[in-house]
Amino acid sequence: MVRSRRFDVRRIDVNKRVMTGSESEEPKLRRAVCPGSFDPITNGHLDIIARASKLYDVVHVAVMINQSKQGLFTVDERIDLIRRATAEYGNVEVESFHGLLVDFCKQRDIPAIVKGLRAVSDFDYELQMAQMNNGLSGVETLFVPTNPTYSFLSSSLVKEVAAWGGDVAHLVPPFVLEALTERLKNKQ
Amino acid sequence: MVRSRRFDVRRIDVNKRVMTGSESEEPKLRRAVCPGSFDPITNGHLDIIARASKLYDVVHVAVMINQSKQGLFTVDERIDLIRRATAEYGNVEVESFHGLLVDFCKQRDIPAIVKGLRAVSDFDYELQMAQMNNGLSGVETLFVPTNPTYSFLSSSLVKEVAAWGGDVAHLVPPFVLEALTERLKNKQ
Amino acid sequence: MVRSRRFDVRRIDVNKRVMTGSESEEPKLRRAVCPGSFDPITNGHLDIIARASKLYDVVHVAVMINQSKQGLFTVDERIDLIRRATAEYGNVEVESFHGLLVDFCKQRDIPAIVKGLRAVSDFDYELQMAQMNNGLSGVETLFVPTNPTYSFLSSSLVKEVAAWGGDVAHLVPPFVLEALTERLKNKQ
Amino acid sequence: MVRSRRFDVRRIDVNKRVMTGSESEEPKLRRAVCPGSFDPITNGHLDIIARASKLYDVVHVAVMINQSKQGLFTVDERIDLIRRATAEYGNVEVESFHGLLVDFCKQRDIPAIVKGLRAVSDFDYELQMAQMNNGLSGVETLFVPTNPTYSFLSSSLVKEVAAWGGDVAHLVPPFVLEALTERLKNKQ
Amino acid sequence: MVRSRRFDVRRIDVNKRVMTGSESEEPKLRRAVCPGSFDPITNGHLDIIARASKLYDVVHVAVMINQSKQGLFTVDERIDLIRRATAEYGNVEVESFHGLLVDFCKQRDIPAIVKGLRAVSDFDYELQMAQMNNGLSGVETLFVPTNPTYSFLSSSLVKEVAAWGGDVAHLVPPFVLEALTERLKNKQ
Amino acid sequence: MVRSRRFDVRRIDVNKRVMTGSESEEPKLRRAVCPGSFDPITNGHLDIIARASKLYDVVHVAVMINQSKQGLFTVDERIDLIRRATAEYGNVEVESFHGLLVDFCKQRDIPAIVKGLRAVSDFDYELQMAQMNNGLSGVETLFVPTNPTYSFLSSSLVKEVAAWGGDVAHLVPPFVLEALTERLKNKQ
Repeated sequence: MVRSRRFDVRRIDVNKRVMTGSESEEPKLRRAVCPGSFDPITNGHLDIIARASKLYDVVHVAVMINQSKQGLFTVDERIDLIRRATAEYGNVEVESFHGLLVDFCKQRDIPAIVKGLRAVSDFDYELQMAQMNNGLSGVETLFVPTNPTYSFLSSSLVKEVAAWGGDVAHLVPPFVLEALTERLKNKQ
Repeated sequence: MVRSRRFDVRRIDVNKRVMTGSESEEPKLRRAVCPGSFDPITNGHLDIIARASKLYDVVHVAVMINQSKQGLFTVDERIDLIRRATAEYGNVEVESFHGLLVDFCKQRDIPAIVKGLRAVSDFDYELQMAQMNNGLSGVETLFVPTNPTYSFLSSSLVKEVAAWGGDVAHLVPPFVLEALTERLKNKQ
Repeated sequence: MVRSRRFDVRRIDVNKRVMTGSESEEPKLRRAVCPGSFDPITNGHLDIIARASKLYDVVHVAVMINQSKQGLFTVDERIDLIRRATAEYGNVEVESFHGLLVDFCKQRDIPAIVKGLRAVSDFDYELQMAQMNNGLSGVETLFVPTNPTYSFLSSSLVKEVAAWGGDVAHLVPPFVLEALTERLKNKQ
Repeated sequence: MVRSRRFDVRRIDVNKRVMTGSESEEPKLRRAVCPGSFDPITNGHLDIIARASKLYDVVHVAVMINQSKQGLFTVDERIDLIRRATAEYGNVEVESFHGLLVDFCKQRDIPAIVKGLRAVSDFDYELQMAQMNNGLSGVETLFVPTNPTYSFLSSSLVKEVAAWGGDVAHLVPPFVLEALTERLKNKQ
Repeated sequence: MVRSRRFDVRRIDVNKRVMTGSESEEPKLRRAVCPGSFDPITNGHLDIIARASKLYDVVHVAVMINQSKQGLFTVDERIDLIRRATAEYGNVEVESFHGLLVDFCKQRDIPAIVKGLRAVSDFDYELQMAQMNNGLSGVETLFVPTNPTYSFLSSSLVKEVAAWGGDVAHLVPPFVLEALTERLKNKQ
Repeated sequence: MVRSRRFDVRRIDVNKRVMTGSESEEPKLRRAVCPGSFDPITNGHLDIIARASKLYDVVHVAVMINQSKQGLFTVDERIDLIRRATAEYGNVEVESFHGLLVDFCKQRDIPAIVKGLRAVSDFDYELQMAQMNNGLSGVETLFVPTNPTYSFLSSSLVKEVAAWGGDVAHLVPPFVLEALTERLKNKQ
């Protein structure tokens, strides 16, 4: 049958193209970046990073430095918490950045930004950013639906609830809970 | 335990590949599927497929067979138009399917569904489908923002405008325009 | 039959308490209604009914009869499945109705309609209905956020997935799964 | 003062441009169209037409003929009801049309489509249509926020409520109510 | 002071009825809370409180204390304005609170938060809060569609318009208008 | 034919009404206002102003003065950039204002506010403002769908991207780009 034959041919084509790469035998590593403030990382963030880590060879977590806004945790502390939380995935690299995310991507040959998507109001702003980023650099943004269990979750909500003594043990990894409790105790 | 061992192996693999590139191991082909009715394919569909073709090694285009609804084009005609429109990308495979998209994915080892996202009303239904599909099979859905130029575009709008003699030359590839004009002429 | 007897007894109780309400010290029974097609009832519906059953003295489940659309289950079958699924709550009454929901409410002295709310596209239509119902009769509509775990769930999605052999055991009660499997088998 | 002088000069310029028109002394009539099915016209439609009639010299009401869908009222009946309802505005013209709205506009030199906007789900579809229409012909679509009192109102909701004996006297003009009651009585 | 005495009396009444609830035939008092900043209360807030006061035995109005943001009115002034505005309902209790709303609820045995819902952008944030609150404590949030007439109304919009001399007499109770005018005059 | 005759009669009527105006022969100028911060004007703003300039005789651009927020450009600089960008349209007047937009409109006999509409989150706030403005003064707000190419564009995004050295040449007029580059250089 014509169609399946062409199919086979093409599949082989594709394999060959990929197998042989251009000059060397090296395969193309598929990279993606998950950007955010991560002040601190929550189970919602982890859900997205975990999904990305299955879909890409290397997942970069980029912690945005916002000089005009003091966080609860320093950027170094946030990076440390993310590293502990993502260690088991085995293909996650954590770094800070300031400036434009698309420059971060170009320097590391990252063609895709992966973001969780929780709700509609999210979407509008994210769509603007995605189109701006694509226009600036060709970097694509891919939105992954957040696990519904974490759809209500944000770092600021976690901090607010924890600050008033609410229980957030189910919303962050255990060592983040510990760091959070310690930090909030010191602030009072 | 097997899985964690494989995990460890992979971790090393990944690092090694990152560090040294790979000499031996065959790379994992990254596959994604773009599903739809494609009755017929528009420049909006092509925009998404083109983006996916840069992000994945193989992009499957899956034409859904809907037995309860007669299309303007037969499934074979739609597949033919998609093949002509995507031939230049070099890594696109076009097939029809009926049943659950997740079964299509499992049979072909496709871990990701890539969909264009145009607007908010889209998003709600798509999110439902994405969560259902993820729950059934672990297949992830990734949403790519549609090029704003095509954000208003849909096959049914194209057909409606063309049926009344409106100009849709900027909305579909030339040979789709031709097929559309021919088909609509015969229907009257 | 035991259950309907208990039912009758309660209904009498209820009426008496409401009738005599004003002169004596007897309290006002708080009633609410959960309307829908329930073809068939899912865990998402049950989530809302369970929440309502804690917030109100009596929860009426009203199965809408739609004469222009044939369901997978008859109205009587749907009522039976709902009764089995809600028996444990102890304060749920299941009935069918046709016509305007506000008339159903007025006849039973129900001041509140309780609906689950899943997403934005839901909300617009629901808001229209709520304002129309309030304008017609003064009946209020209260929206309860659906448990995120069930936010993607709808009877039609369940039927579609089950029809193609997908696993929906986590989405409906066991006896609904059984009825669904049986019915779909007979349809083929 | 420099700015106000430039201001005056420009204002005169503008007036002259408009006064002298092209050949004759006639000013340019500002036209707009309010399209819809109007099956039948409601107070919500009237709210938008009334607003448009204050903003434009002539407001065209275009009743779309949908051959594949039988209405409750014939197109001529709908036109008659709209004419009676809008007679007092003095600058409203009612016609039916089929085909593309932009062709209707071009034939009558109408540069603007005016539509009421009720809610978000409205907006997405309307935005698609607006961008398609603008791309086809340069005709602009202007959205006017519906009076909140009528924001829940639609012809189909009115018909559904009236069919079950609900009171819709506050939602349509008196003679529409009469026609509606008569028609629904005959249908039973 | 008369009002607080009546208040105390009622509170005792209420407690007695709740306390003795289980052994005797006495009914459970149904409580709900309407939280907010109320700086100052508007007709939109009153619309929601009035609806809740018909659906529940006791409605608590909880004025959130936000230490990081200075209001136009002090918390005590806001409470006073709310008390005057809701006096006629007969079952409304007004208090301030700081901390987590769910703690306020637990201390007073309130199972339901009632909130007005104006629009989509509202909904996303509110849904997050509702799910967080439910997860923390089991307290349910019920959303009541705002009367469309007040759907555009917010305290901050009222203050902004009044500050520039715009007429807001139709948007707040007369004594709130008076207090607002006085306060804004003093601020200039 | 009756309808076309009535048509002709009415059209004449309309012309006469317009021609004779009040006392003089002058036609009624149709005015609209495009309000905003314009810090600085972008191609997205220009897209809306250009559309309005075709639909109205005079388009006022009103630059809102926000005393509590320092802009990147002074109000006079913004006005100057807008004047240069809109000079070619021939019927655009640029002014600053503070206070209520409806007062600006009343002083200049402007019955319509024209705003671009980019996305859903925009819409909710804009709808509130539109209904407030209409309630205060009868001024109507008309929303024009933004050209999709500029749908992601905002002054603050442009400034942020430009501040980090991103290329925004396709997003603003050349002399705005120049002013922006100059200003940002001086700020560092």
